[in-house]
This record gives sequence, structure tokens and C-alpha cells, in this order.
Amino acid sequence: MSTAESPQLRVGMIGHAFMGAAHSQAWRTVNRAFDLPIRASMVAVCGRDPGRTAAAAARLGWAEHVTDWRELIARDDIDLVDICTPGDSHAEIALAALAAGKHVLCEKPLANSVAEATEMVQAAESARALGVRTMCGFNYRRVPAVAFMRKLILDGRIGVVRHVRAVYLQDWITDPQFPLVWRLQSDRAGSGALGDIGSHIVDMTQYVTGQLVTGVSAMTETFVRERPLPSESSGLSATGEGSSTGLVTVDDAAIFLARLDGGAIATYEATRFATGHKNGLRVEINGSLGSISFDLQRLNELEFYDATKPAAEQGFTRILITEAEHPYLAAWWPPGHIIGYEHSFTHQMRDLLEAIASGQDPTPSFADALQVQFVLDAVQRSAETGSGWTEVINAPQWVPV
Amino acid sequence: MSTAESPQLRVGMIGHAFMGAAHSQAWRTVNRAFDLPIRASMVAVCGRDPGRTAAAAARLGWAEHVTDWRELIARDDIDLVDICTPGDSHAEIALAALAAGKHVLCEKPLANSVAEATEMVQAAESARALGVRTMCGFNYRRVPAVAFMRKLILDGRIGVVRHVRAVYLQDWITDPQFPLVWRLQSDRAGSGALGDIGSHIVDMTQYVTGQLVTGVSAMTETFVRERPLPSESSGLSATGEGSSTGLVTVDDAAIFLARLDGGAIATYEATRFATGHKNGLRVEINGSLGSISFDLQRLNELEFYDATKPAAEQGFTRILITEAEHPYLAAWWPPGHIIGYEHSFTHQMRDLLEAIASGQDPTPSFADALQVQFVLDAVQRSAETGSGWTEVINAPQWVPV
Amino acid sequence: MSTAESPQLRVGMIGHAFMGAAHSQAWRTVNRAFDLPIRASMVAVCGRDPGRTAAAAARLGWAEHVTDWRELIARDDIDLVDICTPGDSHAEIALAALAAGKHVLCEKPLANSVAEATEMVQAAESARALGVRTMCGFNYRRVPAVAFMRKLILDGRIGVVRHVRAVYLQDWITDPQFPLVWRLQSDRAGSGALGDIGSHIVDMTQYVTGQLVTGVSAMTETFVRERPLPSESSGLSATGEGSSTGLVTVDDAAIFLARLDGGAIATYEATRFATGHKNGLRVEINGSLGSISFDLQRLNELEFYDATKPAAEQGFTRILITEAEHPYLAAWWPPGHIIGYEHSFTHQMRDLLEAIASGQDPTPSFADALQVQFVLDAVQRSAETGSGWTEVINAPQWVPV
Amino acid sequence: MSTAESPQLRVGMIGHAFMGAAHSQAWRTVNRAFDLPIRASMVAVCGRDPGRTAAAAARLGWAEHVTDWRELIARDDIDLVDICTPGDSHAEIALAALAAGKHVLCEKPLANSVAEATEMVQAAESARALGVRTMCGFNYRRVPAVAFMRKLILDGRIGVVRHVRAVYLQDWITDPQFPLVWRLQSDRAGSGALGDIGSHIVDMTQYVTGQLVTGVSAMTETFVRERPLPSESSGLSATGEGSSTGLVTVDDAAIFLARLDGGAIATYEATRFATGHKNGLRVEINGSLGSISFDLQRLNELEFYDATKPAAEQGFTRILITEAEHPYLAAWWPPGHIIGYEHSFTHQMRDLLEAIASGQDPTPSFADALQVQFVLDAVQRSAETGSGWTEVINAPQWVPV
Repeated sequence: MSTAESPQLRVGMIGHAFMGAAHSQAWRTVNRAFDLPIRASMVAVCGRDPGRTAAAAARLGWAEHVTDWRELIARDDIDLVDICTPGDSHAEIALAALAAGKHVLCEKPLANSVAEATEMVQAAESARALGVRTMCGFNYRRVPAVAFMRKLILDGRIGVVRHVRAVYLQDWITDPQFPLVWRLQSDRAGSGALGDIGSHIVDMTQYVTGQLVTGVSAMTETFVRERPLPSESSGLSATGEGSSTGLVTVDDAAIFLARLDGGAIATYEATRFATGHKNGLRVEINGSLGSISFDLQRLNELEFYDATKPAAEQGFTRILITEAEHPYLAAWWPPGHIIGYEHSFTHQMRDLLEAIASGQDPTPSFADALQVQFVLDAVQRSAETGSGWTEVINAPQWVPV
Repeated sequence: MSTAESPQLRVGMIGHAFMGAAHSQAWRTVNRAFDLPIRASMVAVCGRDPGRTAAAAARLGWAEHVTDWRELIARDDIDLVDICTPGDSHAEIALAALAAGKHVLCEKPLANSVAEATEMVQAAESARALGVRTMCGFNYRRVPAVAFMRKLILDGRIGVVRHVRAVYLQDWITDPQFPLVWRLQSDRAGSGALGDIGSHIVDMTQYVTGQLVTGVSAMTETFVRERPLPSESSGLSATGEGSSTGLVTVDDAAIFLARLDGGAIATYEATRFATGHKNGLRVEINGSLGSISFDLQRLNELEFYDATKPAAEQGFTRILITEAEHPYLAAWWPPGHIIGYEHSFTHQMRDLLEAIASGQDPTPSFADALQVQFVLDAVQRSAETGSGWTEVINAPQWVPV
Repeated sequence: MSTAESPQLRVGMIGHAFMGAAHSQAWRTVNRAFDLPIRASMVAVCGRDPGRTAAAAARLGWAEHVTDWRELIARDDIDLVDICTPGDSHAEIALAALAAGKHVLCEKPLANSVAEATEMVQAAESARALGVRTMCGFNYRRVPAVAFMRKLILDGRIGVVRHVRAVYLQDWITDPQFPLVWRLQSDRAGSGALGDIGSHIVDMTQYVTGQLVTGVSAMTETFVRERPLPSESSGLSATGEGSSTGLVTVDDAAIFLARLDGGAIATYEATRFATGHKNGLRVEINGSLGSISFDLQRLNELEFYDATKPAAEQGFTRILITEAEHPYLAAWWPPGHIIGYEHSFTHQMRDLLEAIASGQDPTPSFADALQVQFVLDAVQRSAETGSGWTEVINAPQWVPV
Repeated sequence: MSTAESPQLRVGMIGHAFMGAAHSQAWRTVNRAFDLPIRASMVAVCGRDPGRTAAAAARLGWAEHVTDWRELIARDDIDLVDICTPGDSHAEIALAALAAGKHVLCEKPLANSVAEATEMVQAAESARALGVRTMCGFNYRRVPAVAFMRKLILDGRIGVVRHVRAVYLQDWITDPQFPLVWRLQSDRAGSGALGDIGSHIVDMTQYVTGQLVTGVSAMTETFVRERPLPSESSGLSATGEGSSTGLVTVDDAAIFLARLDGGAIATYEATRFATGHKNGLRVEINGSLGSISFDLQRLNELEFYDATKPAAEQGFTRILITEAEHPYLAAWWPPGHIIGYEHSFTHQMRDLLEAIASGQDPTPSFADALQVQFVLDAVQRSAETGSGWTEVINAPQWVPV
């Protein structure tokens, strides 16, 4: 068990909005829920606005607060830099942190472009030789049901994977008066639904199947092309300013077909216009011996179909993923007492701390995240060229673990 | 109410397997459930094998049985020819029946090729001038929940349609030892999952949205390319013969992206390899003001999301479609007493009898079915040419009602 | 297979409202769906109003119609009398039919009082010696999922039964302006929700567990005690007349605790005031090795929990009861194509015809139905005496099969 | 917002097993998630075993640890005593704490007997005059969906409440080899399923309806009467020791009928033998205008039926309770990002801190908890006397808020 005497991992976090709050909750909780050989210490948080950053530090539990991320990185008392900023600043910050010898946890998507992401991977590879660890924050891998889904599939329980069906449905910008927040601007966000939530389903489906997307045929759409400029925004909510408007420069929705390297075919959909779906990530995998499906809005459940059972007894079994036998769950409550969204971050921090303590590379690595980026890049190229089949540029040495 | 004295519609049915049984049940029941100005009379059924056809006639309720469909068509005491054979014989039979002045109800898909289907539409148009009616059997339009879904959408209850999401998932050939039945042979069936079940979701989504697919990007796959030759088959079940095998010449699965002429984007999937899904037709439509979803395996239910309600009370409402206020339901049982798959055929016959009695054209017309065929044709062309964007050949005068 | 030459069972039906329509649909269909050694012939239907009865005969498919049930019973060309009238006339008609040597199918509840039901059982026992068969119409036993539930339990798949949880929830009289139809009058209906729908859950739970209720503690309630007199009623719908009102003399709801003779404890609820539930019969059984639950509004599904599986894989399996391996289903459509409420009656007629053809007693017998009556009687006695524990009068020789 | 300068509430917690862990998580988090005028300070935790208590303090985040609860209560630097021990020690500890002028939060059930609970209420009333606050930990009141359910009902959205249907289903002792832990001993736990989980559904249904149970008819059962003595237990898990056994002296299950003072009738079931149900608290309320149902295993959802809508559009609406408009949710994540079991404790601490800061009495009060105790007492008395109707002893001045 970690105690006051355990080795510490001193963390500095950059960004304190939605992701910053989720990471903070996880940093505060990880050593409470899990017995780990290393203890996270929340040293400092960094934000641009001094007053808001001070308030965030007090509320989120950071000992100090700073406004210059370079200063944070330069400090001797920081071992790990946790990057929770928009995607356009990931590369610059991560490269600097790695150059300073800090471990880096970087929110997804890794970067807004393949070029930036590639540079980050190269820097991570170099730093790795010096014992510096990097991880990209695809937190949904740490939802217990998702981790268990992967285990069932890799154990061969559904046989050869034939179909992948993944959607990530949200509806927070269906109102045309919702303002032009940074997530709707390509220079800040890189892409729209595709990078923000499409990246999650690409990573998750590759993770649970152990297969990589090799090619895609894609289409993107921007339903509302002009929106009011925002007055104020935070997280996923904002208010419009009224008269002045701006152009939406990202996709509202992206849909694509794909092939995976194990022979499966797939459909993907990422959208912010699916009215009624708030955070509707759903993945289903069909194999020759069974099927598994998952819905993030019921993240404590997994549906498993075992086609090897007698015909009269086959059916989708709704497994409540709250048993001590399930991944991560022994740390929490008795069976049937459910956990929430934020726990995926706590689990992520656990695995990161475990990896650092044992001198191993955490996953997903920057290289894994770059591979997702390559898929998103192929999607965009296909969508721009009449949906024609587009191979994913996929360096073979970077395989997901 | 129809009585013994009501005008009769004298029916001859060709084919008596799965579809023949479903149609027979409907012909027997339609005047029992509904008060109609015309009464169906089940005059004769036609099949190739004399003994099996005689048995089918006795079991299914046909007064006579014949083995030559041309003979059936030539009879004076037949007003309507009901075609329940595999797709490769639809065109020949339908053209002959229309030439003989018979009304024609033809199972879907209308034909195995656009060329045949086009010829059928032209013949139907000619016969129409003489008061001869034609209808294609997309029976799922007559599932009450589907008809109600269309009503809600055309009434504007979900606003502008943004997303269409349709899958038709089956799993009856996942076993590689399942034999090479006619549905797996392109010369008999035209295509595989695409034409057999993909046609249903194309028709249904066009029907409920009132929009037409204008272009697609597609991929098809045949997972199991060689299968044992069948010894005996009936309906969707069969047994293999053992040593000799043959090539599967149709798709096991087809997936495609699409645009509809009202601005929506869509994903479609039709497969016979989705383990655990027996007859899993699911359609969801997202609009600017709401969403609706439907699942054929729970065909008495419809999920409706009304985004105009207060935020705290929004949610998918699971409407049990068993009220007298719902389409077709006043004829059946009290609220909460569910109906089944076969009722869609009874409703189809009702609407057909109503149309004939009132001298109007039933829907879907042959032209509507041809439009579906055009979509399937575009899917196949796209799949054969690297998934590139492919426009649907879409004669503008043939719009679905 | 039954053919025109098969032996006939000539049926006369008394009553042609809701139950009469359901029985007629079943009589018309049973020999179409099933190959049976005997063929049902729909000879005559009986009703009080000549015009309405004639119309019913034409619509429902009966060759003749009569207005005097004694005349129907007296006919030589009737082998079986099917009683679909309100409960107050069951005893008189059944006794007369049995005296005339006719087989009798009697709708549930068997009678409005234990005294009448006992007389019917005695008459049935006497007639039985002469080869006359009797059956009570607890049709839900023939829902395939219910029959399969019984099989799983009797096969020991859930171990020792611990808990029975049964509700039958309807809401058709929640409106205080709904009129005083015969089902709300004790002289016609005997009791309210208790006898009408409570009898179904008592029979079903005894049937699936193979155990009998031995004692109860009960409460009944009439929420709306005065209602408008009806102008016209049919089935479960009616309209009020306005000014004049009458007293509701039956229960609106009945709830009771019970013990079963195998050691299980149970809760039961029957109500017509459960807003939102149209025909919400739900039964769950928990045993030492597993659980099973059923919902009549999703009658093609069964949920089965197998506690002998590994902890991490346990869960409720939603079995779609549409496989040929499931009871009755081989006669119908391919897997995944669902059936409806009315099929339970067709299955009932199949089992009745099979029993008569093979010279065996069909189930549930009049004695089985009397045992249900004894339970309802105990419920009423307990409710009238402060909910105290009340033993079921339970003649040991009358055990359900 | 609370800051380092905010007034503190210095907390001492007694007990550090399951409930202690849940409370600790809440104390650590409450000021992070909510802006409150007062700040909780986790001063000391108390347990019997020095080593285990020290470890608990380190893991759970308490500054100090002690082994004598009297010492804890005597400290000047403790403002509130949080009692997380088994029910047999509640009264003694709470009385001492109140005598020492400490605010008290006491886990449910308030005590193991009505006598003890009454004494606690009297002490609380006396202390109240001095500004000392008391609260009983029925944490499920703070599940957002439950709080919203109450709001809808009290706002009249379902009209007059007719039916209450509540079950709390667990299965953790179905194995007869599960050992005789303290929760199965009447001297430690008072009662079994009844007090442990039955108390939750009594409190919840009274809370959401605003009505009190006035009388009951009940039955209890102990299915497994002898069990191995435990070697080691923690929370809800334990292992048996082998040869020696002891008698189970509490109920395994309790079922009861009830009337509420607003005219509703109710069924309740609490059991630890419902195989497959881990933490299956389900409550449904039917009213004259609608219905609402809740399932703790899907605690982010609420099903609401509004019978005032057009008949064709009525249905149960599955509201995802994750909107800022829902109780407590504005503090957490964007819509669709679910929370878990532990959040109910964080919300409880929030409301407790708010009440203390504003000088008001938190709810549920000790008196509210006593009223639940009275109901449980009536259940036990009825079960012991042949299930006869038993009035709840219900001091009218103690009405739930």
C-alpha cells in the first residue's frame, strides 16, 4: 500500500477545464482506491488566467498554480506533465516536457495533425531510452467493461471477428444558435466530431479486437456552417453572443466504412447531431462464435452472446460488470454498486503509476495514438476525394499492445 | 363488412415456401380482421412438385393446386397473381401475368437486375392504364410501428432529418458448413444479404423519411467462399450433403454510406454473419427536433425522442404500439396484447384489397421497388470500384408515395 | 397431416366478443400451422343478439350462428363446446354440455365461485369416465416462453425455487369516467382484477414452478367506487352514458403474499390501475442456482440467469424464443420472426386437439382451474379478515400436471 | 467557494469498512465537486484494531486514527461524528456524541430496536435546541434520479398515488456455505434483509411519495438456518471456517403489503436470495396521471410515464439523469457522462454541510429514521403473528420532510 513514505510521482497538470477536472478527480482518488507502489502528488496546475487557475487549484486539489506552462515544465519538483489542453497545443507542450525529461500523459487526440503527432512519437521514442514514459489518454480503455470485452475477444470467446459496428453519438450542437466554440474551429481542434469522439471509437475497436484499421471509405458533413461567436465557454457548454457569426470549419459528423487487418469489416459514425444521444458511444463486435456489445451510457454492463451454447439457450447475456473478478472492480464497491465515467480516469492513473513504478511503458503509447491519427487522416482524405477507398498509412512497427 | 356476397378478389399464388406460407396466412386472415369492401378468395396455389404442392394447398388453405404457373395465369377465375418465388423468376411471371390482365403482387426484391425490374415497371405502367394494379411486397412498411414512425416524421415531429442509421443483422450462415442454398447463388438470388435484407432497410428508410437515396459508397464481403452443396432446403433452413462443395457467388454482407435527397447522411449494413442477431432490422432516424428508432425483433414498440420537451424530461419514450389510435391496430386485440411478424402481411393484403376496391394504385409500386433496385445497383457498382462515390440512377418521376 | 379426410372435431362456440374472436382466430389457424391427426371444424357460433351473431359468424368464420346455447349443445353435429362467455354463465353451460356428452373448453376463470367450480369439476370427472374431455383456457401456458420457462425449472436449471414475484398490471379503468361494464360487477364477473388477471398469474406461477400455493395474506382495494353506467361495451372498451352511475362491486386491485408447497415465498399483484401498463404480466422466479423472468408484453423473450457459470460471465440472458428448438415454434417462422398474443390460443387448440385425438386429458383440467379458484377464494377471505394468514383449501388429489 | 480560509467542519468517523470507505470518498470529494460555505476536514478515523485502523486512515485520507471511540468523541477538534459501525453500537455512540455537543451523522438503520431509536430521537431533539444537527444516512435519497422522482411526484405529475411497488433484491448469501457474518446475527444486526435493505425501500418510497406507511401485513423467511462460522469478513464478503456452524438468527427475506396515508397500497420485498440480483433496488409508483420507476443498478436513468399525453404517444420515457437541470448534476460531467453509487454519499455530505452552514436541520432526521424503524417493527410483529394487519406506531409529529 502506498503511504506517506511511498515514492512519489509529482504531477503538474496543464489545463483545468472539463478534462482537467476529470484528471484531478483521478489523481486525488487513485491512491485511495488502489494499493500502489508509488504515490501521486498534485504539485501544480497551470492555466492562462491567474484568478481562474487559482480557483481551480483550490477546488481541484492542486498545491500550487502557475500561468506559464514552460515554467511548470522547468520545475525540478515535477516528475510528470499531464496535458489537458486543446489539441493545438499538445505537440509543443509535450515536446518541451519530454526534452525536460518529464513523463508525459497527453489527452487525446494526440495532436491535430499527423505531422505533429509523428514528431511527438519520435520524441517519445528518444525519451524512452532515458526511462521517460509517455501515454495518451484514451481513458475508455479503462472502463472495466471495455477491458473485459478485450479479454473475452483475445481469449477467443467470439472466434474470428467478422463485424465491427461503432458509433459515438452526441447532440450538443444540434441547436444552430449554439456558438462557435473552439471545438468547432479547425485551427484549434483539428477536426470536429471525427477527432474528438471518432478517435475514441477507432481506438476502442482496435483495442478490443487487437486488430488495426487498414483502409477506409468516408464521408463527412457540416450541417450548420455558420454560428454565433461565443461569449463564454467552458467544457461542453457555452452561450452565444448574438449578432456576429463565424464559419464552422470542422465536421459535424463523420461516417466511414473500414477493413481491419484480421479480416473484419466495420462501420463507424461520429456525430454531434444525433438528437437524444448525449454520450452515446456504442460498440458491437460480431465473431464466428459470438458477439459482444457495449454502451458507454450503461458502462457497468456488457452484453455477451455465446454461440457455443445450446440453440435454445443462446441469447445476449447482460453482464453487470461490478464483480471483483472484473478488471479494476476489486478496488471499489460490492457487486451491483455501479461506478461512473470518472472512474475510467482513476483506472488510467493506476495503470500509469504501475507502469512507471515497474519501469514499463504504459499503453496506449504515443505511437498507438499516432496510429489512430493515421486512421483519422485516411478518413479525411477519403472524404475529400469522393469517399474512395483510402489506405491507412500504418507503420508496421507501431502495433497496439 | 365483407360477406359471402361481397365482391371477390380471386387469388392465385405461385410458390409455397416461407413467403408462400406467410402470404397464405395473410390471405386467410385479412377479411377476418378487417371489414373490407372486397373479399379475397384463395383459388389456387402453384408449385413445381405435384405432391408437395397438393400438401401445401391443403395445409395453407388453397382450394386447388397446379404445377404450371402459365396455366395458373391463363385461368379466367384468377384476378390476382401473387408471386412468392425466388427473384430470378419474378420478371417472367409478372410480365406474363400483366399481359393476361391480372393484378400482380410480387415479393421483393422486384427482380434480380435493374434491367428486368425496369421491364416490369414499364409493363406495370402499361397495364395500369387498363386498371390493372401492381404492388411489391415490402411488407415491413405495414408493421404498425413503422407506419407510425413515418407519420411522426412526415408530421414534422423530429424536424429536419440529419441521420439515418439502418442495419439488418442475421446470422443464419455463420456456420461454414451451412450449405450452398439458392439464396447464396447469384444466378438465383441476384445478390446475397444486399438484395435479400438490404433491400428492406433501403425501402424502409426511404419510406419513413420520405427521402430518396441519391448516392452511395459501399463495400461487400463474402466471408465463407465455398460451402457444401445442399441436399434439401426449405425456407431459411437446409442441410449439407457432405463431400461436394460449390462457390458462394453472392455477398455475405454489404455495408454502405449514403446521402438522401433531403440532406441526411446515412449508414447501412446488411449481413448474415452478425452472430446472435436472428432478424435484427434496426432503424434510427435523428432529426433537428427529435429522433425515432425501431427494432423489428420488438416490432410492437417504437422509441421516440422529443427534443422540444423541457430538458429535464427529455428521453426516449418507448411507445407500445398496440393502441387503437395506431395504424392497423384497431382491428386486433386490446392495448398491450402484441402482434407478430405475420401481421405485416395481413396489413399488406388489407391495403392491397382497399386499393383495388377503390380503383387506386397500391404502394409500394413496381416503380418504388425499382428505385430500391437502383440503390442496390449503385451499392454493387461502388463496391466493385473501390468504394468510390456512386450516384443512384434515379428517374425523377418515380418517387415513393 | 390433417386433410379433408382427417377425422373432424366439430366445434360450437358460445360468445363472440374479445375471447370469441381470439378463439376463432385459433380454430381457423390451428390446422394450418400444425400437422394434427384431427381437424377442427367451425360449425356454429352462439350469441344473444341475432344480427350481431350473424355478423360475427361471417367475420370470424363460423358456418352457422344460433342464439340459444341450449340449442347449440343439443345438436348432434357438435363435438366440442367452447365457452367464451362471462364467468357467471360458465357453470350452467358447462354442466349442460357435459351432460350432453360434449367435450368442453371453458374460458378462465372456471366459474365465479368455488361452489360452482366444484360442481363443474365433479361433472368433468364423471364425464371423463365416458371419454369426454375438459380444459380450462389458461392460454398463457401456451406462450412458448412460458412453456420453456417451465421446462427449465422442472429440469432443475434454477435449483430450489426460493422466490416467486408476479404482477399483472393493467390501466384501462384508471379514468373515473370509464363506465361500469360487466367486468366491474360482482354478480357478473365474480371478482375484479383478482379473478380476471390475478387468476392468470396464480395459474402461471403454479404451472412453471410445479408448486401449489398453500396459503396467502391478502389485501384488495377499490379506488373508484362509483362509475357511470355504460351505454355500450365490447371487449375491454366502452363508453359511459353520462348522468346515471352505479357502484363498483369488485376489486380494482388485489395484492397478496403467499407460500408455495415447495418452500418458496411469493408476492402477487393484480391491478387495473397501474398507469402505463397495458397488459403487463411479469413473472420472475428465483432459485438456488438461477433465475428466470418473463414479461407478456415481450412474450417472445425470456430472461434466464445461470448462477453455475463463472462469476465474471453471469448475467441475465435474453433468449429470443423463436427457435425451432423452443416449444411450438417449429410450426412458425424462421428465428427472429416474432409471434403475438393470439398464437397462445392456437397453441392451446393444438394441445387440445392432440389430447382428444390420443384419448388423453388436456391440461389445465377443470380441477387445475378449481385449484386456482381455491387460491383466489383464500385471497378474498384473507382480504376480508384483516389480511391474516389464510390456508388454501386444496384437495390433494387435484395436483397440476 | 470553500477555500483554505472557509470555516471548517472537523469530522471524526467511527468504523472504516464498506460504509467507512464510502463516507471517506464522499468527505474527500464533497468540497471538490461543490462550492460550499463550509469545508469538511477529515480529522480522525476510529477502529478497534490499531494496525488496520492506521492503514485505513492512510488509505482513506484521515489525518489521524484512534481505537477508542469515546476518545474521539471527547476531542475538542471534532465537530461532527460520523457513525459507520454495525447497528448495535449506533445508540450508545450517538447518545455520547450528542451529549458531547457533536453533530452526528449516523448510518442506517438508525438502531436495532425501536426503543434505542426512540432514545436517540429524544436526545437529538434535546441537542437540536443547542444547535446540534443530526442526520441518518439514507444515502439513496441523494441519487439524482430519486430526488427528481420525488420532485415530479410532489409537483403532481403523476396525480394521486395509487400503487407503490418496491423490491430490494440481493443474492450474496444464496450459497449455504457463505459464513455466519455479523449481518446474519440478530444481536449485531437487529434483523436481516429487512433492516439492512428493507429499510432503504421503506424510506425511499415514503420520501418520493411524501406519504407514510400506516399499516402492514408481512411474512419473513430464513431459507438457510445454519451456516459455517466465519474466519474473516469485510464488507459484504467473507470466507467460512469449515467445521463449526452457527444459527442464522435474522431473516433472509421479508415481504409485506402496506397502506400509505395518502391512499396508496404497496408491496415490498427485501431479500438476499434473489439469484442474479446484486443490488437490485427497484421502485415503481403508479398514479392517476402517470407512473415513475427507478432501478438502482441503472441509477442514472428514470422511467416516467405521462398519461396526459395523446394516447398514441404515451410510453415510458427513459430519462438519462445527467443534465445540469437535474438535482446535483450541475456539479459533475457533461450530459451523458454517468455517475456511480458513491456519488450519493457525496451529495449527502453536501446537503449536510449546507444544512449545518445555514443553521437548519438536515434530512432525513433521526425522527424520520425512527418512523422507518416503526414500519420495520410493524413488519416483524405482523410476521410473528400470522401476517395479520398491523398498524405502524406512528407519532404524528414526526413527519418526513
